[in-house]
Amino acid sequence: MNMKKVTKCAIAALTSVAALGALAAPAFAANGYDLNGKGVDALSVHGGAQRIAGVYGNTKAKNVILFIGDGMGDSEITVARNYLHGVNGTLKGIDTIGQAGSAPETGVGQYTTFSLGNNSGDSLMAKDKNGNLTGNKTAGVITPVTDSSASGSGWSTGTKTYNNAVDVDVKGNPQLNLIELAKAAGYATGNVTTSEIQDATPAVLESHSTERACYGPQGKWDGSDKNGDGKVDLEDAKLAGIGSCLANQLKANGGIGSISEQLLDTRADVTIGGGSKYFNQLDQNGKTLWDDAAARGFQTVKSGDVEGFKALKEANQDKPVLALLGDGNLPTKFNPSVATKYSEDKDNNPTVCTPNDKWLGNKGASLADFTNKAIELLQNNKKGAEKGYFLQVEGASIDKQDHNANACGQIGETDDLDQAIQAALAKVDLNNTLIIVTADHAHTSQIVEAQPYYALSTVLRNADGSKTTISYGTSDSPVYQDEEGNPIDNDEYKQGENGDADTDKKFDGAQGNMSHTGTQLRIAASGPGASRVDGLTDQTDNFYTIANALGLASDTDAQKALSNDAKVEVKKDKDGKYFAEATGFNGDAVLSYKLTDKASGKVVDQSNSSTPVSGVRVATTQTTTIALPADFTPAEGANYTFTVNGNQSGKAVAVDFAGAKASSNENPNKGDNGKTDEKGNQTVAGGEVKKPVAPNTGAAVLGTVMLALALVAAGLCIKFAKARR
Amino acid sequence: MNMKKVTKCAIAALTSVAALGALAAPAFAANGYDLNGKGVDALSVHGGAQRIAGVYGNTKAKNVILFIGDGMGDSEITVARNYLHGVNGTLKGIDTIGQAGSAPETGVGQYTTFSLGNNSGDSLMAKDKNGNLTGNKTAGVITPVTDSSASGSGWSTGTKTYNNAVDVDVKGNPQLNLIELAKAAGYATGNVTTSEIQDATPAVLESHSTERACYGPQGKWDGSDKNGDGKVDLEDAKLAGIGSCLANQLKANGGIGSISEQLLDTRADVTIGGGSKYFNQLDQNGKTLWDDAAARGFQTVKSGDVEGFKALKEANQDKPVLALLGDGNLPTKFNPSVATKYSEDKDNNPTVCTPNDKWLGNKGASLADFTNKAIELLQNNKKGAEKGYFLQVEGASIDKQDHNANACGQIGETDDLDQAIQAALAKVDLNNTLIIVTADHAHTSQIVEAQPYYALSTVLRNADGSKTTISYGTSDSPVYQDEEGNPIDNDEYKQGENGDADTDKKFDGAQGNMSHTGTQLRIAASGPGASRVDGLTDQTDNFYTIANALGLASDTDAQKALSNDAKVEVKKDKDGKYFAEATGFNGDAVLSYKLTDKASGKVVDQSNSSTPVSGVRVATTQTTTIALPADFTPAEGANYTFTVNGNQSGKAVAVDFAGAKASSNENPNKGDNGKTDEKGNQTVAGGEVKKPVAPNTGAAVLGTVMLALALVAAGLCIKFAKARR
Repeated sequence: MNMKKVTKCAIAALTSVAALGALAAPAFAANGYDLNGKGVDALSVHGGAQRIAGVYGNTKAKNVILFIGDGMGDSEITVARNYLHGVNGTLKGIDTIGQAGSAPETGVGQYTTFSLGNNSGDSLMAKDKNGNLTGNKTAGVITPVTDSSASGSGWSTGTKTYNNAVDVDVKGNPQLNLIELAKAAGYATGNVTTSEIQDATPAVLESHSTERACYGPQGKWDGSDKNGDGKVDLEDAKLAGIGSCLANQLKANGGIGSISEQLLDTRADVTIGGGSKYFNQLDQNGKTLWDDAAARGFQTVKSGDVEGFKALKEANQDKPVLALLGDGNLPTKFNPSVATKYSEDKDNNPTVCTPNDKWLGNKGASLADFTNKAIELLQNNKKGAEKGYFLQVEGASIDKQDHNANACGQIGETDDLDQAIQAALAKVDLNNTLIIVTADHAHTSQIVEAQPYYALSTVLRNADGSKTTISYGTSDSPVYQDEEGNPIDNDEYKQGENGDADTDKKFDGAQGNMSHTGTQLRIAASGPGASRVDGLTDQTDNFYTIANALGLASDTDAQKALSNDAKVEVKKDKDGKYFAEATGFNGDAVLSYKLTDKASGKVVDQSNSSTPVSGVRVATTQTTTIALPADFTPAEGANYTFTVNGNQSGKAVAVDFAGAKASSNENPNKGDNGKTDEKGNQTVAGGEVKKPVAPNTGAAVLGTVMLALALVAAGLCIKFAKARR
Repeated sequence: MNMKKVTKCAIAALTSVAALGALAAPAFAANGYDLNGKGVDALSVHGGAQRIAGVYGNTKAKNVILFIGDGMGDSEITVARNYLHGVNGTLKGIDTIGQAGSAPETGVGQYTTFSLGNNSGDSLMAKDKNGNLTGNKTAGVITPVTDSSASGSGWSTGTKTYNNAVDVDVKGNPQLNLIELAKAAGYATGNVTTSEIQDATPAVLESHSTERACYGPQGKWDGSDKNGDGKVDLEDAKLAGIGSCLANQLKANGGIGSISEQLLDTRADVTIGGGSKYFNQLDQNGKTLWDDAAARGFQTVKSGDVEGFKALKEANQDKPVLALLGDGNLPTKFNPSVATKYSEDKDNNPTVCTPNDKWLGNKGASLADFTNKAIELLQNNKKGAEKGYFLQVEGASIDKQDHNANACGQIGETDDLDQAIQAALAKVDLNNTLIIVTADHAHTSQIVEAQPYYALSTVLRNADGSKTTISYGTSDSPVYQDEEGNPIDNDEYKQGENGDADTDKKFDGAQGNMSHTGTQLRIAASGPGASRVDGLTDQTDNFYTIANALGLASDTDAQKALSNDAKVEVKKDKDGKYFAEATGFNGDAVLSYKLTDKASGKVVDQSNSSTPVSGVRVATTQTTTIALPADFTPAEGANYTFTVNGNQSGKAVAVDFAGAKASSNENPNKGDNGKTDEKGNQTVAGGEVKKPVAPNTGAAVLGTVMLALALVAAGLCIKFAKARR
């Protein structure tokens, strides 16, 4: 081991402790004024940022549909209304939700959207370019401007976290999300977007990832032939590398896998969006993720197959729908407009947006069509019909086009979302269905009095004949876009005209230069439970609003209790290969396990526990398969204990089995031991969760106390040193 | 008459007709999309822009307090909350209003704020630098970004109008405001601000003006010795000129007078703010407006007299309070911060705001102190105690400092408003008092992820230790301010770095360069009637919310009916000088009159009717005195008709009197003719409004039909030509 690394790591570990000590200190007013908000330590715990915790009850809803307009602050709503319907006009979906009289119960208010951890996404889970943890000490800074992933993690799990986090807290611990919890409670579920399905907003309903860009095992590789040998295989995957994934999160390294892989584990009944090409990536066995999806029973619809989408007739846990209609983000409704500096001509000839020929809505696959289809499938689903459903629908590219200073783009996407809401209103009964419309954060576009002389702006001809002048405040570099709406030659943060060269800054990914903003913004709701959004709330309150309406497990204890009925069986297949199956860990996202020889106490095998995203991803409310070493054969006469631990619930199941006569039913545990299923798998041992759970059973549970975290930091460093050897 | 002028005027008149023809045309979608909002013609009528007209009832409130944070959009609220209390903190006044549970009835929503007429304030009432009407043809354009005067006119009268208008519609017709209507209904009234009391927001509760800058008869003259002769007199006033006033609005030209003069006519029980120096201006008789106020019974408190303010014990129609504690706008709570371009140092050393020694709150005259005092005075007022009160409180300099890109300034002012709301909450009973908190428009400040490289920004140290980066998007010219918070050397709109010299543009007044924005923004309410602000409303709906809660006359017919009991008496004083007194024109702001010789039909005298703001300003719910020509003496044997017309109500009162034996009681009218009051004035004739009103009685009533307007336009041109002769 490289000693220099060790020293560095020890310092990092100590720094973690010191930082946490500071976090645990009493609240202080850093500027001498009247601090009455919580500090970062209190905010970072599950539910810690709620503004209305326990204040209101909640009417019960059968179904909940959450519409997220990504980047759709009040300014973006007004821009779209002005242009599409006139300044006195009405967005018949967006404006209807929350309007008194639109439903027996309505609510409207503002919510705060801040995140924790600094803006570049650094946190204790920050990693270097090789995907290894760097032990960054800036975790736990309060960040007034969120990104979509921290934001989505907030409304989907009730936990504030760092920018870049997907359903993990500031320490990287997975937090259960609305689809996992809705499934645990017996609901049908759906997830719909116009973006890549791996993008932050849909991702927070599918996965737990320390890094939002960990789309697949090879990051954002599109599955193409990297070495040009005419075939796509693991060699290409190797060349593509791990992309933006934390190394230890990857399945190949004993982790829970990328966002796309976890999407298959989460297994919503209905998933519709873009990002088809990332399913061309290869799993650790060299199979494409599309192959994996098909093997696991998904009905798959790939990029461009609109007819396949239209033909979908059912969606359930046996045959879930995975319809990804574009390779990347889906084409926008309007062609882009380019914001430019002042010119008189813009006032004299205001921009009129033009329809985009490539928009899928032209073929019957608009966001409204997706929404119609999703609701139909969920209504026809047995669970959906009897128990109810949870559905998320995102208008994703309001944000993306606002980043590009593309006024027409953001307006068309707002219209697309508005039409989707109208479609839902036509299909559901607001007496039993709660519809919520909000955004994940606000954005840059401002309606100003006149073109500024230096900032980028677009002057639009409104439907009523008036003009809306939209200024984009955070960059003066025009964003030109290709036919797909992607920025051209615009991946660098341009410096100011008098700026120094060293102030140049890379901008993340294929985005324009405009920035999210940190203002409070509109949340509105119609239907049972809607009044809970009244007044000032926080984004994390939205998790509780939905969870309460559906009766989901929202607090930590209730979530842990979902694993009370967990069971584990050790099996061997007809080839004599051992594996385990875990069920009922419904309060968990990640399992750890350990196989020990009872006599010697020797650990035969155990899961990786180097990071909170190491271990086995739970196949939500399904059966989770845990592979044992390929060469494992119980020695005759030996006795083994196999322990599975739910990392979120802390529930442990230990099963004992004997090496000799393993095929007989002589081991002491309960279960269907000795039974052989239709695939030829034979049950060797079974067990249920012990209540109360004995401390220190199973694999090491990552605690959340400071000392434990320091140990984690130290552990991560060891891993880091290993990886560099 | 100059023929060239005549031709030009004829064209202007025709253009007016043509423009109005266009307005009356059916709605069209100028960009091909789905126009569902009204066109400008429908929006410009009283109540035409309501979004929830007739949809909801209204609980009755005894009192209403309206808090306006000028420029306080959702972004400005969040900026202040982050800095003052932490990003998870609470603004205990602003955030409490509207919060479910804060009162038996609460409401929160968003409202639209657009105006009509173009951004430079042009309309049919636009004037040239000599104060004469130019007949601008751009009236009636829908303008997505309002200024404070159009905005205030909207919430105070229920009528959408042009930027720059104070309680007049797009054609210049005065619209009754909340204080006039509250007084008519028997309520006590108050108007409180941190700005000059003549500034737009307070002005909309005091006056009707085609131009917001018409502070006094000499515009914005401070009453100083212009010719340096050691005394301030009409010579100085003449040198100061008419400032920004429309010539025909001035009393010297037969108009209803400036904003300050009308403030005295409106006669709220309590008026507190700044702008003391403008009351040093001289009326047409050479008296200062302070003298006029004192002569009319006002208790006056001038700039700097905090002890005088504190000593105020009562306020009523006999002794109304006029307390103007600063010469101009009142000093801000925090010293200014200067937004600058990118520098690393700003991130390393975030700004901490410092208290301003000059803030009047240090002496017990904060906005909270004003609010406390106003509520006490109104609660002690007999009408206030028995019937109730209407009070407006403005935090004015949130806007002003946002214009200056002064983050500390806008935050301190938001705090000042927040404290004022808290003061009100401590004093009133939300079971009978409706408190509404909103803004007139949103503003430029945006919370961004990081300092932009080119735009102006300030990085602030929040109370929770985190940093808020605020970017000001619409100008790159830093705004430096003097100790009073006024911008230094900043009266020009700086051009872009590559701009041409001819794109330079003067910026209006002592304001920085940042622009209002046109986004929908927060409105919140607690108390009876609060739920009417739920969902999406328009700013003009706020007028109806308040009017309905207090039972005021809100629709045009009800307002007209307020003049049903109007009476007129012709009197002569002990020197034999004739005048008239009009009472009961409670549905009017402006009266016109005509004195005719019955036999010959010859008009002996009449009011000016060249513009809608010509005529006699009603002393609201008091007695309005109408002077007759100083040399008028009824000829013996002659019979006269004196007709007074309420220009808003259309109600007319005509009284006949005979020339001979005018001192006896032989004329045919009802009334206390012949009675002599304590001042020695003798009643000559009296009359009441005729029901139904005969058409064409009284002075020419300015209609609102197109033809009438065309005639007005033509009339204005004649006036214009006259003035230029």
